[in-house]
Amino acid sequence: MKKKTPKESLTVTTKIVLPNDTNPHGNLFGGQLLGWMDVTAAISAQRHSRRVVVTASVNNVSFGSPIKESDVVTLEAKVSRAFTSSMEVFIDVFIENQVSGVRTKLNEAIYTFVAVDQNGGPISVPQIEPETKEEIERYDGALRRKQLSLILAGKMNPQEATELKRLFLPDEN
Amino acid sequence: MKKKTPKESLTVTTKIVLPNDTNPHGNLFGGQLLGWMDVTAAISAQRHSRRVVVTASVNNVSFGSPIKESDVVTLEAKVSRAFTSSMEVFIDVFIENQVSGVRTKLNEAIYTFVAVDQNGGPISVPQIEPETKEEIERYDGALRRKQLSLILAGKMNPQEATELKRLFLPDEN
Amino acid sequence: MKKKTPKESLTVTTKIVLPNDTNPHGNLFGGQLLGWMDVTAAISAQRHSRRVVVTASVNNVSFGSPIKESDVVTLEAKVSRAFTSSMEVFIDVFIENQVSGVRTKLNEAIYTFVAVDQNGGPISVPQIEPETKEEIERYDGALRRKQLSLILAGKMNPQEATELKRLFLPDEN
Amino acid sequence: MKKKTPKESLTVTTKIVLPNDTNPHGNLFGGQLLGWMDVTAAISAQRHSRRVVVTASVNNVSFGSPIKESDVVTLEAKVSRAFTSSMEVFIDVFIENQVSGVRTKLNEAIYTFVAVDQNGGPISVPQIEPETKEEIERYDGALRRKQLSLILAGKMNPQEATELKRLFLPDEN
Amino acid sequence: MKKKTPKESLTVTTKIVLPNDTNPHGNLFGGQLLGWMDVTAAISAQRHSRRVVVTASVNNVSFGSPIKESDVVTLEAKVSRAFTSSMEVFIDVFIENQVSGVRTKLNEAIYTFVAVDQNGGPISVPQIEPETKEEIERYDGALRRKQLSLILAGKMNPQEATELKRLFLPDEN
Amino acid sequence: MKKKTPKESLTVTTKIVLPNDTNPHGNLFGGQLLGWMDVTAAISAQRHSRRVVVTASVNNVSFGSPIKESDVVTLEAKVSRAFTSSMEVFIDVFIENQVSGVRTKLNEAIYTFVAVDQNGGPISVPQIEPETKEEIERYDGALRRKQLSLILAGKMNPQEATELKRLFLPDEN
Repeated sequence: MKKKTPKESLTVTTKIVLPNDTNPHGNLFGGQLLGWMDVTAAISAQRHSRRVVVTASVNNVSFGSPIKESDVVTLEAKVSRAFTSSMEVFIDVFIENQVSGVRTKLNEAIYTFVAVDQNGGPISVPQIEPETKEEIERYDGALRRKQLSLILAGKMNPQEATELKRLFLPDEN
Repeated sequence: MKKKTPKESLTVTTKIVLPNDTNPHGNLFGGQLLGWMDVTAAISAQRHSRRVVVTASVNNVSFGSPIKESDVVTLEAKVSRAFTSSMEVFIDVFIENQVSGVRTKLNEAIYTFVAVDQNGGPISVPQIEPETKEEIERYDGALRRKQLSLILAGKMNPQEATELKRLFLPDEN
Repeated sequence: MKKKTPKESLTVTTKIVLPNDTNPHGNLFGGQLLGWMDVTAAISAQRHSRRVVVTASVNNVSFGSPIKESDVVTLEAKVSRAFTSSMEVFIDVFIENQVSGVRTKLNEAIYTFVAVDQNGGPISVPQIEPETKEEIERYDGALRRKQLSLILAGKMNPQEATELKRLFLPDEN
Repeated sequence: MKKKTPKESLTVTTKIVLPNDTNPHGNLFGGQLLGWMDVTAAISAQRHSRRVVVTASVNNVSFGSPIKESDVVTLEAKVSRAFTSSMEVFIDVFIENQVSGVRTKLNEAIYTFVAVDQNGGPISVPQIEPETKEEIERYDGALRRKQLSLILAGKMNPQEATELKRLFLPDEN
Repeated sequence: MKKKTPKESLTVTTKIVLPNDTNPHGNLFGGQLLGWMDVTAAISAQRHSRRVVVTASVNNVSFGSPIKESDVVTLEAKVSRAFTSSMEVFIDVFIENQVSGVRTKLNEAIYTFVAVDQNGGPISVPQIEPETKEEIERYDGALRRKQLSLILAGKMNPQEATELKRLFLPDEN
Repeated sequence: MKKKTPKESLTVTTKIVLPNDTNPHGNLFGGQLLGWMDVTAAISAQRHSRRVVVTASVNNVSFGSPIKESDVVTLEAKVSRAFTSSMEVFIDVFIENQVSGVRTKLNEAIYTFVAVDQNGGPISVPQIEPETKEEIERYDGALRRKQLSLILAGKMNPQEATELKRLFLPDEN
């Protein structure tokens, strides 16, 4: 299969925060944002693989400054790295100041999807050829995150996670 | 503030998977489940703290077997550990077989919430007194997860994460 | 078929009242609560019968104190009595004080469901073995309510409703 | 206050049954219909009283033949009788055959609403002047239903429910 | 096929404007109203044709005075003219004053639908026999609007739009 | 006020068509698409004006090939021309083939918005400086559409619509 660039899977969604999306302080519910990120990232993984995809996991997502009712939220998702049948997708979340138009990045989340065939079994996907500096960094970090994910799921011995161990033992490198 | 048990924050929600919640294979969207988990966990954190809470982060969530349209899904959330103003909440997700009634655990997710006062600033919450074996294990693991989260957010030096380092370097202990 | 206890069909749902669920006074719409009660009670009847169920009737439901936006509402449903293919389900509705955590029962509603086979025809269900004092009272009252329901639907002669007549003519008994 | 006719509060709503409104057999959920009836009846009570109204109770509602996905459902609500601050509203539910256009009445439900002032307290409403034969029958039955409702809520002694007792003692009339 | 009157396709829907339907000024979103008009008009076209219908086009819709949260909005749709397989539907939008009950017409929109058979291909529909003065005017204007629509879609030469040309050359008539 | 380019107001939204968005043939409801177009176009007008905007009118929208359930729909909106306080926005609608990834333009719609101040009154907006060939064509056509819109609303005499008349009477020019 021919490699693809992250740009080919770029998926953009723009939302207005409505009353039902907010808590009593008028701020966007985290769960609402998690749902929006999942749909945007799933379309991105689908564009990369040209397959039906299913969410496999959500890595650490942290919520920064609150997003207010009526704010315009933009989500941008791109596949950062593909493994055999799974794809890691980065979602960047922005809001823009209503008066100045200045756009600020609020969140960054990482979801993993698996491409499935018509029986729901995994099927292989094209690999990723990163282009920009940020895309290369995300591509490189993906392996470390995959190891961490396997360890947390009890499917890998921490001792074998070569990439990750290095994080805790800088002197040895 | 008087300590509270995880049981005091137990929050249960039961859902039927509707057509709009599913992908073309008739399986529940991951993002829909992420949203349901957020609401259930937020109520749990609110019961523990008696405060308005905001989602601070979502730790590694993995999605196992697919959940089908018309399935009955039960979510059970309990605060596993409280820090100064933040609370870690575990959400267990079950489905039950429509014919036999046998209940199977499908997912386990960890969300973190912060209790806020009327200006949206953090405010302190009661500590947790775990009771069952599982509650104690989750309580103990919470510190390790907090360190991991701080490292991933670039707010802690991996060398200082004593609890976590032990995971990768068991020989040194 | 082996009898089952009401506890085996206990179904719990927890909800936060959102802006779209409320009238101009900020109180929960009655119709929204009726819908939530139907879903929770239907899952309860499905757990009892292990069948697809359809709503057959709603008995007298009265709405007490208003429920406000952002309130946490808990619904608890249990089958109170089963007839050949129909099941009476009680739904208790609670809210809890955000500050004290004190839980108050606000409503009590009774729905009836019929278990159906794959052609949509009625199919028999297990009988109920009530355990607690409240479960026994509800079990006993179910026959009286069934008679009332049949009379109101014009399917029973009031003279034949032995249980009900006693309510209006205690001296004759 | 000047009396009003039921026709002045007539409220019509037309709906298409969508996938999310149906159970696994493709039939409309009872709870969805209960919600639609509440909104339609509330607008009717609001038109009669020119006030904000709150749902006070739902009387016996029975669900007849199933309503299928894509069916067109019409709800017609009219105030049948007004008491001091409460109003009884009848909702007639129709579906029409897609091919012949023949309209069939499927359900009939009775909801009660209370008109409230700006503090949420009850406020008086105009009385009803029934015109058609059906409106007169519904007007006359309303008192009997109010007594039944009070008895079921434990607020009236069955012995004092003169209208209702007559139902069980036809010989004395 | 026997002609039908516009009255036979009259479809009425009544809505309450909820928080999620409004912009930061508390006014109904235009897009929400466009959606409500489409559903109401589609049912009207379906009643006329007794067929599944698909939206073919939306003609000029202008939005007048803002509609506020909690307002009661009534939509009335009637087929104004039928061509071979397409139907033009007028939707009149009213709100009523909560205190006086006075009903005001706010909007008027024109949608066009096509009746389709089971393969999604166009199928012929009954013609329209207008009755009232307004129905006759709308029936007469429909041809002019159809020409305009064809010109705007680049499917008709403006020189051939006899009816329309007359609008710009009154002296020649 | 400094002129802005259409590109500065580009707003992209990506959607998956869900079961509830479709008719019995599994095709997207026109009304659903109209609503999505309104939100996307409103955000575009808001980005251009940095003001709250309200939908003023919808010009001729025609729906081409049906969009199926599970299709990925992309909407792209840009302000094509600004007048004193109103803005014309073009929305292009695309779907992409799930297997080949080929993107096809399905629809093109034109909405008009008005920027409003805090009292809901109109307020002036920056003018548009078109850049690409398509942007210039759309900019030039906007005046003709404005005249047509005024005539249809009865606010302009067709004889005065110089630009439009030319369309029907090319020989006189």
